[in-house]
Amino acid sequence: MDDVVARFLAGDRRALARIITRVESESAEGRDYLRAIFPHSGKSHIIGITGGAGSGKSTLTGALAGEYRRRGKTVGIVAVDPSSPFTHGAILGDRIRMQEHALDPGVYVRSMASRGALGGLAPTIDAVVSVMDAFGFDYVIIETVGAGQDEVEIAGTALTTVLVNNPGTGDDIQALKAGIIEIADVLVVNKADHPGADILVSQLRALLALAPKGSRRPEIVKTTAVKGEGLDVLADAIAANRTFLEESGGAAVQRQAHARHQVLSIARSILVEKIRHATPEDELANLVERVAARQVDPQTAAEELVTMYQPSYRVRRGERVS
Amino acid sequence: MDDVVARFLAGDRRALARIITRVESESAEGRDYLRAIFPHSGKSHIIGITGGAGSGKSTLTGALAGEYRRRGKTVGIVAVDPSSPFTHGAILGDRIRMQEHALDPGVYVRSMASRGALGGLAPTIDAVVSVMDAFGFDYVIIETVGAGQDEVEIAGTALTTVLVNNPGTGDDIQALKAGIIEIADVLVVNKADHPGADILVSQLRALLALAPKGSRRPEIVKTTAVKGEGLDVLADAIAANRTFLEESGGAAVQRQAHARHQVLSIARSILVEKIRHATPEDELANLVERVAARQVDPQTAAEELVTMYQPSYRVRRGERVS
Repeated sequence: MDDVVARFLAGDRRALARIITRVESESAEGRDYLRAIFPHSGKSHIIGITGGAGSGKSTLTGALAGEYRRRGKTVGIVAVDPSSPFTHGAILGDRIRMQEHALDPGVYVRSMASRGALGGLAPTIDAVVSVMDAFGFDYVIIETVGAGQDEVEIAGTALTTVLVNNPGTGDDIQALKAGIIEIADVLVVNKADHPGADILVSQLRALLALAPKGSRRPEIVKTTAVKGEGLDVLADAIAANRTFLEESGGAAVQRQAHARHQVLSIARSILVEKIRHATPEDELANLVERVAARQVDPQTAAEELVTMYQPSYRVRRGERVS
Repeated sequence: MDDVVARFLAGDRRALARIITRVESESAEGRDYLRAIFPHSGKSHIIGITGGAGSGKSTLTGALAGEYRRRGKTVGIVAVDPSSPFTHGAILGDRIRMQEHALDPGVYVRSMASRGALGGLAPTIDAVVSVMDAFGFDYVIIETVGAGQDEVEIAGTALTTVLVNNPGTGDDIQALKAGIIEIADVLVVNKADHPGADILVSQLRALLALAPKGSRRPEIVKTTAVKGEGLDVLADAIAANRTFLEESGGAAVQRQAHARHQVLSIARSILVEKIRHATPEDELANLVERVAARQVDPQTAAEELVTMYQPSYRVRRGERVS
């Protein structure tokens, strides 16, 4: 294992791929790798790129990576795909557009499932981002498909969150609806060559004017990712956001908040595993049965379950308190 | 409190509103109400209506409620809006379309935030659905905004999940991307009067043909919700799904799985609260600080946190084991 870590730290992409695979499978080996390399993380600029259906996020992500390459920087990309037991990830459509970078050693792309077993964003996304960060990429871009919950969690992981909007397809209204505009550090109006782009910019400005006084307004950037237009401005806006956050202390606050969220959410997973193992399956099944039969409500059943796990209860039963 | 419950069970809508508000705020009073009325739930047909941006979910939900009213049935609607501290739920756009039912005592509409404090679908959504169910509505419709994670969790709550697709705007591809088609019991092609509706139906048929042999194929229904077309067919398809699930035993399996998910997820919340209260804030802050400074990885920190909560650790510190 030390050998893999050494090769990883020396920049070996095969070691990177191996560690990501182990970390993603949540194996004990993966956790050991993560422990070993975690101290080397913390230097990448983590960027979240998110937006509604058909907004061209993948194209924009690929184009932004290209802009960073022109600037001599390296880029890791985590493309988050909702997991699907049905499609088995076979339908990758827009991922294909990233193949332009397939032979470039300065870009590394990894597709991941978005869902954890208990719902919510897969905890391994944070871990894979940390691995790419520790590997030494200047930028790690997380691209999420879909609009809603996932974006909000991504915003906790990313230092800079880029929300991609799309003129003319009702995505403008959708951004409001989804209520995720407040998580954006940079607002991109992509497909800026389409009619309605300027109207959308005006709508976004009007919306931002509603924000409470004194709150920082995200910058609005127009891009046409398929033609490679506006990416220099976007890269500058992202850099300006980092500078602002580092100087204002916002970055430190974000890192603290994210660390806290990670620790508590992993602790929660550990506890749920413990409670599952500590509760005999027939007692859990019995509780579930009573809820399904409407004899007891879920809150009361959950309280009973937690009580079972309490040491006092286990002592009463004559079991050993671990 | 008994008086409010008595009025609720007698069909008083003010008692219904009050109980929902208390349940939604997750107060102790709300939990008491839920305990009292939960045994009366379990009779409604819970329907999830979900789909991509601009697919006309709200219009369809309103129109389907109208169809049920014509059939002499009552309907509760839970409209799930991503919560937004910025917009404060002020932008309700398509909610307004449901106002046609505002004066109808056979329809009750409630808008809710979708996000819980720790991410994931708000646990109170399940609770509010149970309240409407216990109130005696024949149907409870959960309508979700956005595409992705939320839909998958809604599919656990709803017996019948309706996925709304939209011709011509790339939503067809989006449905595949989001990988949520496998959770659908009924596939609706809404805006069936638009060009491309029949192509979308063909595409969906082709996609379903890829499903494993022997798996049940969801029915495809064309609607034009704004004109009130196709709703009778949709209502019949939803009824057929219920009949199928009840007769095949699928409904019982779904109720068990949902009860299990609810119990475990509430237990998880209780445990996280416990661990937060059991851990002195300065010890937690210290752990978080070390993670933010990359001195320790989140997994190790979470394990330390859980260990702190272990009775053995607390005994070593001379504290009382509760």
